[in-house]
Amino acid sequence: MRTGQLIVISGPSGAGKGTVCKQLLREIENLKISVSATTRDPREGEVNGINYHFTEKEVFLKGIEEDKFLEHAKVYDNYYGTPKKYVMKEIENGNNVLLEIDIQGALQVKEKYPEGVFIFILPPSMQELKNRIVGRGTETAEAIEKRFKSAYEEIKYVEKYDYCVVNDKVELAVERIKAIITAETCKVKHDIEEIISKFREESIC
Amino acid sequence: MRTGQLIVISGPSGAGKGTVCKQLLREIENLKISVSATTRDPREGEVNGINYHFTEKEVFLKGIEEDKFLEHAKVYDNYYGTPKKYVMKEIENGNNVLLEIDIQGALQVKEKYPEGVFIFILPPSMQELKNRIVGRGTETAEAIEKRFKSAYEEIKYVEKYDYCVVNDKVELAVERIKAIITAETCKVKHDIEEIISKFREESIC
Repeated sequence: MRTGQLIVISGPSGAGKGTVCKQLLREIENLKISVSATTRDPREGEVNGINYHFTEKEVFLKGIEEDKFLEHAKVYDNYYGTPKKYVMKEIENGNNVLLEIDIQGALQVKEKYPEGVFIFILPPSMQELKNRIVGRGTETAEAIEKRFKSAYEEIKYVEKYDYCVVNDKVELAVERIKAIITAETCKVKHDIEEIISKFREESIC
Repeated sequence: MRTGQLIVISGPSGAGKGTVCKQLLREIENLKISVSATTRDPREGEVNGINYHFTEKEVFLKGIEEDKFLEHAKVYDNYYGTPKKYVMKEIENGNNVLLEIDIQGALQVKEKYPEGVFIFILPPSMQELKNRIVGRGTETAEAIEKRFKSAYEEIKYVEKYDYCVVNDKVELAVERIKAIITAETCKVKHDIEEIISKFREESIC
């Protein structure tokens, strides 16, 4: 059986990763989302295993030691990470797994699992990126400026990725990512022997 | 401006390359077909520049010497080849060029233009391949057997290609190839500098 693929959707803040991923999950059957583990407390309405795998700090730290995460980060006093186990199980079962993650996280994942499909989401322009960040309306001018400068710096990491998708319109970006997933399935990689032997097994007569 | 791509559609006889290519040309705007040059005489109804570039033998041989072909072959007394000039001009103009070609030709093209996108078309099974070859009804039993054995041998060349598309149903094969073309357009390759500089040129304000 053909194994699935890890589809990493990443890019600067404000590029629209979240919206794109939600739409992908709606449109693609058998696409599984990777759920992060975190040591922070659940907020109201958050469900364990759906929003996060809520994990004790000791268990999380032991997990880091035992190399059980594809990536992890500490944000203030809390840890966040992508558990390897779930992702690998789905891939082995032939399912594609979607991982929405910031650039630092994606680069860690690439170190541990270079076979993944790394897609960088770009806003159509820096001005549009700024509009989007401002448009959220939830941040101070200082926070907006900081987020924007960081996004500006992050653009250079596109070279570490396999694909770059401009999120000019969500439905167009989604179509491009669906095309990438289909194309990756058609790639001649590890399964050459399988293809050849499948054909050779059949009798010529 | 982003350059176009050379899309090489190849595979064993009976895989259905021709049908797939016709449908691709119908469905994709701005996809140009590469027209072969030949030294054979035009048949009734064939138009120079549409069916073939009909070329004098001396001119063709001089073209080979001057490396003017992406590939060429001699079949009986006639030469056939893919002129570089036309393909390169369209690619430079940002258009994709479709080249339908047998495996030997595709491997020659890969030597000269490895940047091309090499797609191997497979029949769904060897039995189906045989049915298709027999179904043409235009050949002797001996010719059919020869063609089938050659197709059987040719399957192994799939490993030289970038993608492998099973032609189970023409419309599905066409969808997969369209996805491959879209994905290739999103690939992070030579245009990284262009992407980064496009974003960097805009002022941060």
